[in-house]
Amino acid sequence: MGISDILNRTHVAWMDAQGPESDIVISSRVRLARNLRAIPFPHLLNEKTGAQVIAQVNQALKTSKNNISRGLVLVPFNQLSSLDRSVLVEKHLISPEHAGNPLPYRGVVVNDEGSLAIMVNEEDHLRIQCVLSGLQLNQANKYAELADDSLEESLDYAFDEKHGYLTSCPTNVGTGMRASVMLHLPAVAITNQTNTVIQSITQLGLTVRGMYGEGTEATGRLYQVSNQVTLGQSEEDIINNLWTVVIQIVEQERHLRERLLKEMRYQVEDRVLRSYGILTNARMVSSTEALSLLSDVRMGIDMRILPEVNRQVLNELLVAIMPSHLQKAFGEEMEPMQRDIRRAEIIKQKLNLK
Amino acid sequence: MGISDILNRTHVAWMDAQGPESDIVISSRVRLARNLRAIPFPHLLNEKTGAQVIAQVNQALKTSKNNISRGLVLVPFNQLSSLDRSVLVEKHLISPEHAGNPLPYRGVVVNDEGSLAIMVNEEDHLRIQCVLSGLQLNQANKYAELADDSLEESLDYAFDEKHGYLTSCPTNVGTGMRASVMLHLPAVAITNQTNTVIQSITQLGLTVRGMYGEGTEATGRLYQVSNQVTLGQSEEDIINNLWTVVIQIVEQERHLRERLLKEMRYQVEDRVLRSYGILTNARMVSSTEALSLLSDVRMGIDMRILPEVNRQVLNELLVAIMPSHLQKAFGEEMEPMQRDIRRAEIIKQKLNLK
Repeated sequence: MGISDILNRTHVAWMDAQGPESDIVISSRVRLARNLRAIPFPHLLNEKTGAQVIAQVNQALKTSKNNISRGLVLVPFNQLSSLDRSVLVEKHLISPEHAGNPLPYRGVVVNDEGSLAIMVNEEDHLRIQCVLSGLQLNQANKYAELADDSLEESLDYAFDEKHGYLTSCPTNVGTGMRASVMLHLPAVAITNQTNTVIQSITQLGLTVRGMYGEGTEATGRLYQVSNQVTLGQSEEDIINNLWTVVIQIVEQERHLRERLLKEMRYQVEDRVLRSYGILTNARMVSSTEALSLLSDVRMGIDMRILPEVNRQVLNELLVAIMPSHLQKAFGEEMEPMQRDIRRAEIIKQKLNLK
Repeated sequence: MGISDILNRTHVAWMDAQGPESDIVISSRVRLARNLRAIPFPHLLNEKTGAQVIAQVNQALKTSKNNISRGLVLVPFNQLSSLDRSVLVEKHLISPEHAGNPLPYRGVVVNDEGSLAIMVNEEDHLRIQCVLSGLQLNQANKYAELADDSLEESLDYAFDEKHGYLTSCPTNVGTGMRASVMLHLPAVAITNQTNTVIQSITQLGLTVRGMYGEGTEATGRLYQVSNQVTLGQSEEDIINNLWTVVIQIVEQERHLRERLLKEMRYQVEDRVLRSYGILTNARMVSSTEALSLLSDVRMGIDMRILPEVNRQVLNELLVAIMPSHLQKAFGEEMEPMQRDIRRAEIIKQKLNLK
């Protein structure tokens, strides 16, 4: 199938809404930072050394004995248009930084399900990521480690007995692992608890970011919570620590939803139903507004104010309405207003609950 | 049938949407101020002299030879609850001032269709009003004059050869006539032309008021335009003058709508469809918001953005969603939030266009 399939469809693995707590935990991600011994870190690469990384990764994929990586193809950025790279960003498969700097020796490896994505020559030579639906940190970790192991069969990683995996940025040294979850927290937002929640998460050594990582806003009341420290903690510690905090946040969100229903039922119903009414009728809608209204609708379905729906549709919509996905589906450049119109059409098609 | 029928149903004559230009001109009203000779004006009345007015009007109705007034009953305010009086105000059959001061010798006469309403001992002994749908000023005038003539068979009006009909307020002396139309002017409002239009109307000697007369706001982009001067103008002059101005405003509103469709089609469609989406989904809605959203929906139907609908439903909704009508239909006192909920339900019931 290859990458063109991933580029031309909306769905990737994390959207399937099959994982635990997948009403509130949209997705779980584990990312391992790895570098090749004897080759400079990416910010010091040139065409020649960059090509060496590409060649070694290609070789590793080719000779891999493990199903998980066998047959996967490294797609260098000179084979991906700017639009295609944006599509991968919107699917949360590569970082905006990776997409924004398309050096010829940068690239990406994605499996057919879109559950595994390896960024090549981003901040590190390899960033092996696994993204799954719901709260599946252990599974995502297992999967990422399997991919890591299968590559390590032929790659020689920069590893130090004392410090662990060596990485470009010191914050990643050690396990080289970053684990994160994307959470939908509308009740926290509606009851103005966001700052309190973010503060307590931060005090626990974790970071909160918006939907598209560092520096992006929490549009649609979607928050990414991840570990900040990798050195001195085992992979298991990182996962368990994050898991414990996430479970607490999920409980708090559930508790606040119950309180909202008890104390402000009509107001909450009104909010949800109006958002649904606008989404299913508007002639045009911006992505920011759409994400915000979709957040109300998702909460409304969770709270049984709106009828049950295949959650996969909601997760796919989060990405299908983004500018590059709209453009990819439309097949040509679109003015912002055209996008707003097309976005409204897609939402109307997909969101017919009654 | 009597007044209880008028009180218990929403519909009255002006809501039938059968008159000319009834997309933009909701209703036309002609009101004649009359006083009885040899009885003090209402502000000087006492129980005894007030009762004399009531008795004379009752007698006139009873002995009337004309169909138009025969069989009509004067209902004194001591037989009407505060809620019932408010219901008549919301139907535009009596003034807020009349309803708000329920002296025992005040009262009202309404015919079965609600096209004729006579306020007794409001500012004048008699205020004979005819309200019809659309732009029907001549018909409303004819109808009011017929009622006037039939009462004059037995009533002795205060009339002066030089000044004409004598009235409490000098501005009504002469013909004692006030003619008005209720206009729906969303395109004027959307394009920020309201002040310009109001200024030019005022310069022509006419007055612009909100939906419920003097001192009320133009909620729902509904404006009442009426003559200000009665002395020195014939009934015909007053009607013709108002008619000419109204036709100009209607043309301007139509022109602005065309321009909106030409220059901002998507934005206008979006506005109309969102308002429709909110009205058909919201769990609660205030009367001010409802009137504003209904204005968009009415414009959307006029512009064929929404499917055609029986306009009578729209006119009835203007009144059915008002607080006293909601309370009358509900049968007991309602908290504001209960009203907002009930209002949303009624709108959903009535407004199902798709």
